[in-house]
Amino acid sequence: QTKPPMSAEEARALKDDIAALRAEIAAMERRLEESGLAAETAAVATAPAAPAAPAPAAAPVQTASVSDTTITWKGAPEIASGDRSFKVKGRIQADAAYVDAPGGLDDPGLGFGNEIRRIRLGGEGRLGGGVGYKLELELSDNVVELVDTVITYETKNWLLSVGNHNQFQALDEMTGDSSGSMMERAAFTDAFNFERRLGVSAQYRGIKDWLFQGGVFTDDIEALSNSSDGPEGGDENNSVGVDGRVVYAPKLGDTQLHLGASAHYRDLNRLSDSSTRYRQRPFVHVSNSRLIGTPSLAVDDETHYGVEFAAIRGPWHVATEGHWLDASQVNGPTANFGGGYAEVGYFLTKGDSRAYKNGIFDRTKPVSPIDRGGLGYVQLNFRYDYLNLNDGSIRGGEQNGYIASLIWGPLDYLRLNLNYAYLDYDGATPLDDGRRNYGVHVTGARIEVDF
Amino acid sequence: QTKPPMSAEEARALKDDIAALRAEIAAMERRLEESGLAAETAAVATAPAAPAAPAPAAAPVQTASVSDTTITWKGAPEIASGDRSFKVKGRIQADAAYVDAPGGLDDPGLGFGNEIRRIRLGGEGRLGGGVGYKLELELSDNVVELVDTVITYETKNWLLSVGNHNQFQALDEMTGDSSGSMMERAAFTDAFNFERRLGVSAQYRGIKDWLFQGGVFTDDIEALSNSSDGPEGGDENNSVGVDGRVVYAPKLGDTQLHLGASAHYRDLNRLSDSSTRYRQRPFVHVSNSRLIGTPSLAVDDETHYGVEFAAIRGPWHVATEGHWLDASQVNGPTANFGGGYAEVGYFLTKGDSRAYKNGIFDRTKPVSPIDRGGLGYVQLNFRYDYLNLNDGSIRGGEQNGYIASLIWGPLDYLRLNLNYAYLDYDGATPLDDGRRNYGVHVTGARIEVDF
Amino acid sequence: QTKPPMSAEEARALKDDIAALRAEIAAMERRLEESGLAAETAAVATAPAAPAAPAPAAAPVQTASVSDTTITWKGAPEIASGDRSFKVKGRIQADAAYVDAPGGLDDPGLGFGNEIRRIRLGGEGRLGGGVGYKLELELSDNVVELVDTVITYETKNWLLSVGNHNQFQALDEMTGDSSGSMMERAAFTDAFNFERRLGVSAQYRGIKDWLFQGGVFTDDIEALSNSSDGPEGGDENNSVGVDGRVVYAPKLGDTQLHLGASAHYRDLNRLSDSSTRYRQRPFVHVSNSRLIGTPSLAVDDETHYGVEFAAIRGPWHVATEGHWLDASQVNGPTANFGGGYAEVGYFLTKGDSRAYKNGIFDRTKPVSPIDRGGLGYVQLNFRYDYLNLNDGSIRGGEQNGYIASLIWGPLDYLRLNLNYAYLDYDGATPLDDGRRNYGVHVTGARIEVDF
Repeated sequence: QTKPPMSAEEARALKDDIAALRAEIAAMERRLEESGLAAETAAVATAPAAPAAPAPAAAPVQTASVSDTTITWKGAPEIASGDRSFKVKGRIQADAAYVDAPGGLDDPGLGFGNEIRRIRLGGEGRLGGGVGYKLELELSDNVVELVDTVITYETKNWLLSVGNHNQFQALDEMTGDSSGSMMERAAFTDAFNFERRLGVSAQYRGIKDWLFQGGVFTDDIEALSNSSDGPEGGDENNSVGVDGRVVYAPKLGDTQLHLGASAHYRDLNRLSDSSTRYRQRPFVHVSNSRLIGTPSLAVDDETHYGVEFAAIRGPWHVATEGHWLDASQVNGPTANFGGGYAEVGYFLTKGDSRAYKNGIFDRTKPVSPIDRGGLGYVQLNFRYDYLNLNDGSIRGGEQNGYIASLIWGPLDYLRLNLNYAYLDYDGATPLDDGRRNYGVHVTGARIEVDF
Repeated sequence: QTKPPMSAEEARALKDDIAALRAEIAAMERRLEESGLAAETAAVATAPAAPAAPAPAAAPVQTASVSDTTITWKGAPEIASGDRSFKVKGRIQADAAYVDAPGGLDDPGLGFGNEIRRIRLGGEGRLGGGVGYKLELELSDNVVELVDTVITYETKNWLLSVGNHNQFQALDEMTGDSSGSMMERAAFTDAFNFERRLGVSAQYRGIKDWLFQGGVFTDDIEALSNSSDGPEGGDENNSVGVDGRVVYAPKLGDTQLHLGASAHYRDLNRLSDSSTRYRQRPFVHVSNSRLIGTPSLAVDDETHYGVEFAAIRGPWHVATEGHWLDASQVNGPTANFGGGYAEVGYFLTKGDSRAYKNGIFDRTKPVSPIDRGGLGYVQLNFRYDYLNLNDGSIRGGEQNGYIASLIWGPLDYLRLNLNYAYLDYDGATPLDDGRRNYGVHVTGARIEVDF
Repeated sequence: QTKPPMSAEEARALKDDIAALRAEIAAMERRLEESGLAAETAAVATAPAAPAAPAPAAAPVQTASVSDTTITWKGAPEIASGDRSFKVKGRIQADAAYVDAPGGLDDPGLGFGNEIRRIRLGGEGRLGGGVGYKLELELSDNVVELVDTVITYETKNWLLSVGNHNQFQALDEMTGDSSGSMMERAAFTDAFNFERRLGVSAQYRGIKDWLFQGGVFTDDIEALSNSSDGPEGGDENNSVGVDGRVVYAPKLGDTQLHLGASAHYRDLNRLSDSSTRYRQRPFVHVSNSRLIGTPSLAVDDETHYGVEFAAIRGPWHVATEGHWLDASQVNGPTANFGGGYAEVGYFLTKGDSRAYKNGIFDRTKPVSPIDRGGLGYVQLNFRYDYLNLNDGSIRGGEQNGYIASLIWGPLDYLRLNLNYAYLDYDGATPLDDGRRNYGVHVTGARIEVDF
């Protein structure tokens, strides 16, 4: 005999009651914990006897330890308890692109290409006491590399990091590749060989709206690996650099401002026995061709500095950067190269806005994702991207790039990115008629999951 | 800073609170009782939680939401909430084998061998809104490769996938290597170079008992990696193929039937500048020797097609496939090769049956695993495995294989596999007396955990 | 004004009440879920549960299934239910070191160096029925390798393992690299090429205070990989060895004693076609230079054996080992090498003591970690480390090492390790004045997270 089901209102009221009870119980638990008598092991809740698991009957009263373990969904579940937490991290980026270069450029690496741009697998967590860690393996170009792999210590105002991480190079470099406005970063970031390196750094956030970042770094972990000798072998690599960046990010009314500047010095030391090149792909990564780039140079130290400006207001954002590199040559003059970009973006979907946190753009989460009946966010961005690799007798070439991107973020942690770029080159790889000034059309698409 | 311990008054107040809560719960229970809702399944426990926020002080009546987070054990725990989920994936396969070839075959790669056949580590999850992902790294032959690495979108009738995945090649290829009836798949699947490739695919399940699968694929992720140039380099690899498969799988009384057919075309394009070989190991993977195989061929496109039949009834199953490959040579005629197998299997343990799902054999779970006092399942399989790599002037050799397997599955996600194979070769690697027709005895064992 | 703290009894009673409330609430939620009106947001769980024990909990009148899933924090959360469990494993070790060798030694691999010493990512779990698994990838020297990758079966007295694991070589080798008393293990462990290998082993713990370990092993997984041929290729590698170890570890009052002995035999078989070297770095791993070491030898089998002694009492511990290797040469006499160490350690922090479990030193957890207002543990260790690679005409050199370490363990799973070593060499790599007897000063630091 079925009785009438509980009404929705009744159920909701009951749920509210239960929620209230839970909150009170939680408060009591905290009291207990503060009294130093709480159980030390976290017990957790659980689930309806999973399939295949026998479901024991109810047990009678007594002891038990209580827990404040929570599970928060961030693409993968973040399990947390007090100041301890853990989350698996993963990233999949699948790219397809078409590089349409002039007919006289006979390079089989152009045309259509596709690839898995990045695969990452790792974890991040907090051990308690302000100590955290992050550990990510990346499989890219068939090589397994470490991406962010750091141990951190965080207080209210300070964040100390040791491990493989970015050297505060530039806004566009530090913004996550799944949070950026284009499929690929500004041309200067690759051309100037930005990469994560092993080092120690400190960040200070103790003055309202200001962020100070600085560190000492050696080289990337692969370069430091000691299994190889010689000037490029990790064993003999004694390059070292210092890096600093300052950000002032006040909120003026509804407008988030970002003003930044960074400076960097690196002594290549024994690495100067090998050679350095500054070059760049035609926007997309699926092509391995570099249409502009310097020859191999014997560089013994690098100084570079950059300025950053960005602003976010409602659906709009603008960002622009300039970055200059002085490469001191062993047997020649110091070569100066430069690059920069300016971009504007707009969300077509109501209520969405570009996220900003800790001195960089953050992942945007759609206000109305498709799993709650919405469309996700749709964002349109335009960027002018400049790179100059000419200095004196070094004729690496010059790029004026005009790039548009249409990004659809149907759900948190999922993006589709459609890009078009027109790259106007001066002094690029010569066509068969000898011309070095020409334009290249690039179309690219990416689907990415990143959590 | 530590807070003072709870006072006696405070403790008394807490006790009063608990008494009050008890009364409220009793009242709520009466309400529930009156609503006549039966209770026998469990849901998840839940707790007050402000995810990622510092634990709030004692909350009053309203706040807090309740949770439906569940943890289901699938080798590793699957954490799920609504249409979001996450599970770590892993696989360990340890092999030992003995290849007993005629004395006149002096190949130090034969005889005893052992290896870790496959190691996989990854994760799979659902982001909500029908979107899911899977990401697996495999360490095999000292190279890290991607296995299934896809982003998926699923509706009631459709499953769309983009990423590295199988091209619906054949029942035996698509059935998981931990769900198959033998340690290694049918000879034609390796000989014809089946592998996962980067592509997009669609699967339609909207007509009862029918499954339609199709996709467009380029090459495997390693081959597409853009860090190398030249005809085999990822940068210049523009191979592309289309693949389709149809399955009709009605249930006739207690018998699960499977009828399938697939067709595949691949244009190797620039890859035709390098060479293609069709060859196969002596059943087990621990040996790197190929006793039969074609010479290197310059192939510019491949067309292949297969037919599949299988049936499962109680402890019995049968399966058979035929697969034919047309390899169009750049400077020669189209070569035609073929292979196939027929197998029968029987579970010695009462109640066990081979699992089948989504057009392939699925993982069998023992009815009485050892952790519930049972023996697990024991399955006996026999397979005839044929491969013909001869066509015209190409004399790659012919194999008639007779294989028996005894599989013990003591627990979900754990298998032990003992195999014996007699491989009867025609036109294989010559013995020192010049004979090319001979038989090889192979014994292999595998223990595998796969979740 | 502090009032008297709540008594242990009162606290326990409170906790019981809370557990009972939780169980009742869980039951109500299940009723709600059955009504189809369960809430959509995830909060988490907590429930009555004694970690790893069946969950006794107050349950009122009616039915309900109770789950016993628990989450225990071990750097990362270990999720467990009954005899099933899972935990992600990870390790980060970042090293910096300075090797101060005499001026006449012109080796650019000396001096300052830094690196990520080890990165590990993996998982371990139990499937039920006594079956478990462990699977770890290590990125070290730019190569991804398997570390412990085993499937295990455990009963009260037995532990059976198959997969890649240690061969019970020595106390110092088997003690985890994050549990050891120095940044690097005793010189003989590297010099004698100890490594994990693929094999099967059994351990017996059925006699009080005794542990018996034995196994049969082939080679490490990389060496066995079948993708390469030739004498060093995995395909043709048929090396095999047997290993055994016995430990007697009684507790005498407050003193934990450890007495151990091990013996090992390995037939290199076809590997004897390639060559074997016995050599060692100057203590730290960031340098790839080996100042002492034998030339390449054609070895066809190795016999080695070791003795172990250790004792722990309160903050003190001592440990000493001796290990001897007989390397039988294909075209020469059997060469005999030896090594050993003796160490003493002391915790400066009150209440801390070195952990010991299953025949090896275990991870020490600080009594007062910094997240509970303490300082963590501070330990001071001294070791004398001897290695002799001279025998007859083979003059590999001799090392007398004097090493001090200062270890700070602020939290579980986090350590900082500061080391100084003076290595007194006889017969080492010659200086430019021909001298081969000299001393080297080494300073090293490591920060490590390991869970």
